[in-house]
Amino acid sequence: MGRIVMKFGGTSVADLDRIRAVSTRVAAEVAAGHEVAVVVSAMSGETNRLVALVDALDADCAPGEAKHAEKLGGDVHDEYDSIVASGEQVTSGLLAIALRRRGVPARSWLGWQIPLRTDMAHSKARIAEIESSAIGPSLAQGNVAVVAGFQGINEKHRVSTLGRGGSDTSAVALAVALKADRCDIYTDVDGIYTTDPRVVPEARRLNRIAFEEMLELASLGAKVLQVRSVELAMNNNLPIRVLSSMADEGQDNPGTLVCHEDQTMEERVVSGVAYSRDEAQITLLKLADTPGMVARICKAMSDAGVIVDMIVQGISRSDNSANLTFTVGERDLETALAALEAAQDAIGFADIKSDRDVTKVSVVGIGMRSHTGVAQTMFEALAAKGINIEVIATSEIKISVLIDSEYTELAVRALHSAFDLHETPAPPVTAP
Amino acid sequence: MGRIVMKFGGTSVADLDRIRAVSTRVAAEVAAGHEVAVVVSAMSGETNRLVALVDALDADCAPGEAKHAEKLGGDVHDEYDSIVASGEQVTSGLLAIALRRRGVPARSWLGWQIPLRTDMAHSKARIAEIESSAIGPSLAQGNVAVVAGFQGINEKHRVSTLGRGGSDTSAVALAVALKADRCDIYTDVDGIYTTDPRVVPEARRLNRIAFEEMLELASLGAKVLQVRSVELAMNNNLPIRVLSSMADEGQDNPGTLVCHEDQTMEERVVSGVAYSRDEAQITLLKLADTPGMVARICKAMSDAGVIVDMIVQGISRSDNSANLTFTVGERDLETALAALEAAQDAIGFADIKSDRDVTKVSVVGIGMRSHTGVAQTMFEALAAKGINIEVIATSEIKISVLIDSEYTELAVRALHSAFDLHETPAPPVTAP
Repeated sequence: MGRIVMKFGGTSVADLDRIRAVSTRVAAEVAAGHEVAVVVSAMSGETNRLVALVDALDADCAPGEAKHAEKLGGDVHDEYDSIVASGEQVTSGLLAIALRRRGVPARSWLGWQIPLRTDMAHSKARIAEIESSAIGPSLAQGNVAVVAGFQGINEKHRVSTLGRGGSDTSAVALAVALKADRCDIYTDVDGIYTTDPRVVPEARRLNRIAFEEMLELASLGAKVLQVRSVELAMNNNLPIRVLSSMADEGQDNPGTLVCHEDQTMEERVVSGVAYSRDEAQITLLKLADTPGMVARICKAMSDAGVIVDMIVQGISRSDNSANLTFTVGERDLETALAALEAAQDAIGFADIKSDRDVTKVSVVGIGMRSHTGVAQTMFEALAAKGINIEVIATSEIKISVLIDSEYTELAVRALHSAFDLHETPAPPVTAP
Repeated sequence: MGRIVMKFGGTSVADLDRIRAVSTRVAAEVAAGHEVAVVVSAMSGETNRLVALVDALDADCAPGEAKHAEKLGGDVHDEYDSIVASGEQVTSGLLAIALRRRGVPARSWLGWQIPLRTDMAHSKARIAEIESSAIGPSLAQGNVAVVAGFQGINEKHRVSTLGRGGSDTSAVALAVALKADRCDIYTDVDGIYTTDPRVVPEARRLNRIAFEEMLELASLGAKVLQVRSVELAMNNNLPIRVLSSMADEGQDNPGTLVCHEDQTMEERVVSGVAYSRDEAQITLLKLADTPGMVARICKAMSDAGVIVDMIVQGISRSDNSANLTFTVGERDLETALAALEAAQDAIGFADIKSDRDVTKVSVVGIGMRSHTGVAQTMFEALAAKGINIEVIATSEIKISVLIDSEYTELAVRALHSAFDLHETPAPPVTAP
């Protein structure tokens, strides 16, 4: 008996059959004695339909949400949000009806009805506060709360929508506000894996993973959970369970529990291997050796809105000159190069080289805090396969290397094997 | 310079081209110096799509809104309203964007944002109160208010929707709350006609018509305006203009002004000829001549939920017995006959006759208050064409007759001609 929040994305409520299936899962939690709030997205395709209507009003605006948001420059974002939020409004009503039809008391809650207050940034709003004084008592009286995800109300009493992946954050923030015991994120995979199963068929689903590990994995390209939702859960010590919305009724579906590190994880040094191909490498050659040179480079990138990730300074063996290599997101490469060329005199360098065909491969694990030898195992495993390392970056629980993209799968498989990640894990534990 | 409310129905906002055309009309009123609030329906077809989704959740529920509402028995009407109201939410946002794109400041207003408060009757709610403290100042600052029609918020903070034709009533009630000078209802006809132009090609559009005449015409089957909206306008002395949403830009589109009777109408005795085929005639034969007999009949009908319209008592020439003839709505005939048969002993009559093939034809005009001879002209015109009158009913500004349906068109044309309704009217007057 407890209070839980369940979240279902667009493909999980894509049609009426899927909505009925969701009502079955919710009814099971109610039957188990839980108080349940459900956060739903729009039926898949519906948000795109609404965005296309807005786009078509602008003859000269290319379709696509990102492009659109850029083009509008904020001037009609308030109306855009009001239009797009109608998609979740429909789904929340339909699921509430489906639940009542099977005898489960339920009602829908729109962002303004809770209210879920956001800041003024339309279309990418951040949650400021979630009121629990109305929805809390309704839950306590035995009603399922079916909450329209992705939407809120801002200080001007207008509908606002959260950024991409915002429904995960809605769900976690709601769980925090409702002092829920757990937030269950239903998605199209059945949990968090030791690595991408398309690359390593022996990849295992993890029973548990620590928040810090999940944050590293999320930001490294494992796209299951939005980074902000994990941060929010970690800061509030709210366990998140990631599990499949596609599993048949009655089928075992334990998922992965994302929670604070605990005893069950202590045996494990490395939890997973992640990779990201969205990287580009830039090298500045023959740098003038003046104080503050790296700071000037970072400022040039920052002014251009480009985030610098891995960074390493080196000395050329041939002429003993200094050079600097760093990585940026692949989509930012052109912007970065243009900014560097414009600042060539101010920074002081002879030439630029760049490379898009690089991949960042990382091993992540909270056990690295107390275990040495992870770096050695990693570099040996890569060397054994003849894979060159271009750049290395480390954090307390992560080691990342930049390699030639051609070797991506080879490297991931070598590391998965080197850290014995295919081995049977400790027995599954029951979620709280 | 003044404040006006404009209302556009579903066919007037059916697609983005029509929404752009609406924005042109609104922009013209703004350019003329008016403060403008616009009430919009859902894009045509959208409400049906949403209703179909709800229907499909109930496998055993036949499609169709009326049937649906009946079946649900109120238990999911709150969710139904929340789902269906999303249609107007989308249109209001799209029109606000279309207006801004042409440089007209505009914003959408949902029922809960105004707020437009209703009673608790979901799906057929009545407006309780419209707050003008937010929308009024916004209008005064030069912003067009684009209001989602058909929807409100009830005491429980839930979305409610008004009954059928509710957008007309939304618009008029909003105009009253905003102390507007006029409410313009854009529809698929270009005004109120002296009679149905499909029956009488010479029928003329009226420049003006009195509220009382419009009420008689609306309740007699001319389906342009909802009766409740006309009552509300009359009680608040708010002129309504009915005009075409299909007219080309720049085309003369004066419409018909519905307002209190004034000097410009005084010349006219009869304003229009209306007819309704949705009538059935019931005759009770050889009635027991006891006190309260008519009251007992009316009670039997009232208990069965049947509205009795025209009523006439007669004496049979052959046997001197009393009989009673009255009309009910055609769809109520079976219910009425069953109720009468069940009450045959209590009422006391020998036999029942009924006839569905009857039509009510009416002449309406406020000039009848001060002019005699209308009835004579009417009966002579019908007699000249050999049309028998079954029942006669009159009010202060209306004479109705019940005739055999076969003669409907003949009767309407004869009356239109007898009252010179095809003649050129007084010169058009400018709407306020």
